[in-house]
Amino acid sequence: MLLYPGVTLLDLIGPHTVLASNCKVHVVWKNTDLLETDSGIVMKATSTLEECSNNLDVLFVPGGEFSIMRDDEVLRFLADRGSRARYVTSVCGGSIVLGAAGLLQGYEATSHWTALDKLSLFGATPVEARVVRDRNRISGGGVTAGIDFGLVLLAELLGEDVAKMTQLMLEYDPASPFDAGTPAKAGPEIMAKMQQTLGSMDDVLAPMCAAAARDIGQYLPVTN
Amino acid sequence: MLLYPGVTLLDLIGPHTVLASNCKVHVVWKNTDLLETDSGIVMKATSTLEECSNNLDVLFVPGGEFSIMRDDEVLRFLADRGSRARYVTSVCGGSIVLGAAGLLQGYEATSHWTALDKLSLFGATPVEARVVRDRNRISGGGVTAGIDFGLVLLAELLGEDVAKMTQLMLEYDPASPFDAGTPAKAGPEIMAKMQQTLGSMDDVLAPMCAAAARDIGQYLPVTN
Repeated sequence: MLLYPGVTLLDLIGPHTVLASNCKVHVVWKNTDLLETDSGIVMKATSTLEECSNNLDVLFVPGGEFSIMRDDEVLRFLADRGSRARYVTSVCGGSIVLGAAGLLQGYEATSHWTALDKLSLFGATPVEARVVRDRNRISGGGVTAGIDFGLVLLAELLGEDVAKMTQLMLEYDPASPFDAGTPAKAGPEIMAKMQQTLGSMDDVLAPMCAAAARDIGQYLPVTN
Repeated sequence: MLLYPGVTLLDLIGPHTVLASNCKVHVVWKNTDLLETDSGIVMKATSTLEECSNNLDVLFVPGGEFSIMRDDEVLRFLADRGSRARYVTSVCGGSIVLGAAGLLQGYEATSHWTALDKLSLFGATPVEARVVRDRNRISGGGVTAGIDFGLVLLAELLGEDVAKMTQLMLEYDPASPFDAGTPAKAGPEIMAKMQQTLGSMDDVLAPMCAAAARDIGQYLPVTN
């Protein structure tokens, strides 16, 4: 699981919690220095990109600060490990990062609703769903989708019974006080307020994705 | 929000994520040294118990390593801040810790299903529900209930629209691949396997809670 400065912590901790009681999970970054996550909480990787096993069962990327999609060292790491991992996975904006590393070309995938349309820039087919699986690519929607994603992945790795026991232990029986978890369900009034808060986010995201998409050739496997 | 060694990280990060984009959240512990959470991820508090404001809008305790309920310094801190906080709150095993600090006497509350019955030792009335509110006490069930709890609390603090916008931004539209999030829903087969895994957890928890309940008088406010 990739960690990075500005990561959306719940994108990481949702699936991490689902998986960690049953699997050996490494949280990796360039170094093991302290770094700040989206909400100010400081933590650190358990090992470095360099130390990370060459052959992973699962490669996972959470969302967060979008500039990570322009980080050459990270993209090379993802492209390399992703070329051999049994499962190449992401939640939220992490799908965009996988896209920038050339790992979603020709695959269906999902992402946070604010970023979903950007997947097509990377040759992926955006699908509006909580969890999307296409061959060995598994992606989750925004932030909290990481818990559903984690259960899907855990069932795939260790079987349905282990996934159900984990769901029970995490008491995952959601009962939100509101039903506003998607743009359609939130409705036009909340969406209008949301757009005001988001402001010009897309003015930054769209050109960054376009630039990343132009550079994607560097990360694609060489085929003769 | 209390942090401590062995905390269940998702108990903390669920509500933290819901609240932190709208509120000033402090994550507090005895010191700001690195400490290890339940799943091996290392992090640190943003400030110390001593630095923590005397008058809090919200006091929150997540679950985790149960020995925290026998930590005198922590219980004194909770009893003190809880006596003045606008809201005294918890998720999962955190309710037991509030109980040990004398903060749930005469209140309805909930907790993780493995610990729920222990609340009565502390003079609380256990309620099997996702989120329980009784006057200014708000508690959530196990682990993932922290997200629902967070939305209930955020609506209380800043209104329904802010809570709905946050739900939308976190894309909280749960769609679990299984429906096994409570003992009743998981069914007898999964529960039997679960009990095997849990083993003698209650043999440790029950006497620890009983001892904590016997000492509760130290933390109760002195009334004449």
